[in-house]
Amino acid sequence: MTWVTGADGSPYGVTNLPYGVFRHGEREPRIGVRIGDFVLDLAGAEAAGLVLAAGALGRPTLNEFMALGRPQWTAVRRRVTELLTDPAHRPAVQPLLAPLDQVRLLLPFEVADYVDFYSSEHHATNVGKIFRPGQPPLLPNWKHLPIGYHGRAGTVVVSGTPVIRPTGQRATPQGPVAGPSVRLDIEAEVGFVVGVPSPLGRRVPVDDFADHVFGVVLVNDWSARDIQAWEYQPLGPFLGKSFATSVSAWVTPLDALGDAFVPAPDQDPPVADYLRDVPHLGLDLRLEVWWNGERVSQPPFAGMYWTPAQQLAHLTVNGASLRTGDLYASGTVSGPERHQVGSFLELTWGGAEPVKFAGGETRGFLEDGDSVTVTATAPGPDGTTVALGEVTGTILPAR
Amino acid sequence: MTWVTGADGSPYGVTNLPYGVFRHGEREPRIGVRIGDFVLDLAGAEAAGLVLAAGALGRPTLNEFMALGRPQWTAVRRRVTELLTDPAHRPAVQPLLAPLDQVRLLLPFEVADYVDFYSSEHHATNVGKIFRPGQPPLLPNWKHLPIGYHGRAGTVVVSGTPVIRPTGQRATPQGPVAGPSVRLDIEAEVGFVVGVPSPLGRRVPVDDFADHVFGVVLVNDWSARDIQAWEYQPLGPFLGKSFATSVSAWVTPLDALGDAFVPAPDQDPPVADYLRDVPHLGLDLRLEVWWNGERVSQPPFAGMYWTPAQQLAHLTVNGASLRTGDLYASGTVSGPERHQVGSFLELTWGGAEPVKFAGGETRGFLEDGDSVTVTATAPGPDGTTVALGEVTGTILPAR
Repeated sequence: MTWVTGADGSPYGVTNLPYGVFRHGEREPRIGVRIGDFVLDLAGAEAAGLVLAAGALGRPTLNEFMALGRPQWTAVRRRVTELLTDPAHRPAVQPLLAPLDQVRLLLPFEVADYVDFYSSEHHATNVGKIFRPGQPPLLPNWKHLPIGYHGRAGTVVVSGTPVIRPTGQRATPQGPVAGPSVRLDIEAEVGFVVGVPSPLGRRVPVDDFADHVFGVVLVNDWSARDIQAWEYQPLGPFLGKSFATSVSAWVTPLDALGDAFVPAPDQDPPVADYLRDVPHLGLDLRLEVWWNGERVSQPPFAGMYWTPAQQLAHLTVNGASLRTGDLYASGTVSGPERHQVGSFLELTWGGAEPVKFAGGETRGFLEDGDSVTVTATAPGPDGTTVALGEVTGTILPAR
Repeated sequence: MTWVTGADGSPYGVTNLPYGVFRHGEREPRIGVRIGDFVLDLAGAEAAGLVLAAGALGRPTLNEFMALGRPQWTAVRRRVTELLTDPAHRPAVQPLLAPLDQVRLLLPFEVADYVDFYSSEHHATNVGKIFRPGQPPLLPNWKHLPIGYHGRAGTVVVSGTPVIRPTGQRATPQGPVAGPSVRLDIEAEVGFVVGVPSPLGRRVPVDDFADHVFGVVLVNDWSARDIQAWEYQPLGPFLGKSFATSVSAWVTPLDALGDAFVPAPDQDPPVADYLRDVPHLGLDLRLEVWWNGERVSQPPFAGMYWTPAQQLAHLTVNGASLRTGDLYASGTVSGPERHQVGSFLELTWGGAEPVKFAGGETRGFLEDGDSVTVTATAPGPDGTTVALGEVTGTILPAR
């Protein structure tokens, strides 16, 4: 129970408490925690001595706080919970609350490296069927390791940032042409944010996942399918992805998701030792994809073949170091059913089966002016629900 | 002519003047310029009022200086040249010179995003022949756009950093196994360092190359061929590359390479408008690859099919922004002859034709304890030679 008006019973109650960075009026950007429809100014709270975090809460990004490590993350979360539940703190804390509609949310952390995985068996199978009909949809390596690649960290943007339609080359029957993408798509994903770094040359075992990963964001990895299809052989996606990757403004700490861990799908064939996680746990995050205000899909994250702990262990098995602010995304989240897919490529089966909106309009891929929002919820303690914010963007015409 | 002892006639004379970051004794890391076998302390020079750069020379990386832009780069270079050539400055400047063997060179800039291209036709053709025998060695897209992908910025290390043999999965006739790489290779490349950023959504035309790019580094993009071969489909290289990428400690400013620009190879078929650079210029950089002290190859950079200006225009055609510290590498530099290739994959034709050293030893790929050094020179003004430093690394056993 919190004394903050309207927060109890909301999916942003005291069992959630996600972190973000906000600007309020003319003040400098600062770290806050969401409670109900308010944001608690943690920089102000630390300056007033209400919470202690070695000054890290007074910074304009979460990076320094995320670098402190799990004991500090847990201590700050416990203290914030006290401040928001014990009415004795209300006189001191109330002035540090700002209504959400009066603040602007910023990119919550400085992205170090961005890695994108490809860990939904349903998604990889669908893509294989669409692009390589008549062949085995999964490549031979897919069940042996979590396939991934590096994306562009500098074009990770916060939810709400408009997405300018990218220009590039695409193949046509008359040869390649350059121009605005005509197959602009989304990828609904879940991202994991690294707080605690690791040194070069030392792998991070699956068991150390929670020592390094601070929390979770929602990700929309916008994708120009035509640019991607022409460029991606043999070195993978490049300009078809690097124009923009949107993340939610709220980083949900792992501590808020304790009730969301569920057994992940069995893996057959057995995985290599360094990928064996016991228990083998995924997260029961229920995504929703909204296209121009209509819900078009409900991808279930619980069914992902590779778990976030396995992804982290794989990412570092070659000795690659981690930095604070590293972001790794799950890959498109798709379930077994058509209404559970995380891309419009799958939803419209390569554009061949357009989506019909209630108003009668149809869509294959994204048109200028279209908006897409991805949301997610997870089970919290005692029957509560934890919301993971949203990641939204509107397409602007090519320049 | 410089008054610095021994610098005239050396490839680090006053027509070169590369930038780096060094540590001297217990002092904080600082920016310096190499002259002969000395480094000029630019932080000290700026503090003494000998050169002006808005305080940027007092920083521990080149990033702030590189962000100032070409007029400032040129002004500082001109002033440093004055300081090192006019004997009247010698009394003030001499105390700011440290012998190179008394300093430690550090990573000269903080890497923002790292992109690796694949722009040598000879290299791409060789790789195609080795990996896809009997098929057309170049894929259909190769001559239409400079193929590239994002690498891991966080594992870019300075020359001299030991390289720990990476562990990972590789395919065997009995199925995939996990363990240390047994086909560890190099890729001799040239890297371009971005100084001036560009906003999201705005492409950088080919003509603006010199407004954004500050200078050049040598790159060794260490590659575990066995890990790469198993993982790279369909999303490209990942762990086979991300364990380490070495760069030279010296960043050679473009201003030092004015005499090295030469016509690049003709391009047929004609390229898209956004890739058309007039004049179409490459750089006459002459690389040398040394394996355990023996020179095994001399890759000519002048023959690269795609120019650095085209690579930059391609990288941003989709609206991707640039940040100060972005690094993009050319891809392996290989010429048409076997003694001109930039990887041991090519030098030994997939390991089938081992290199014989003078001492009688042979090598297919890298063994623990092996060292590789890549150097390069370019023509300078008036018959001088400009050296581009070196990038070196020694293989340590897997952990």
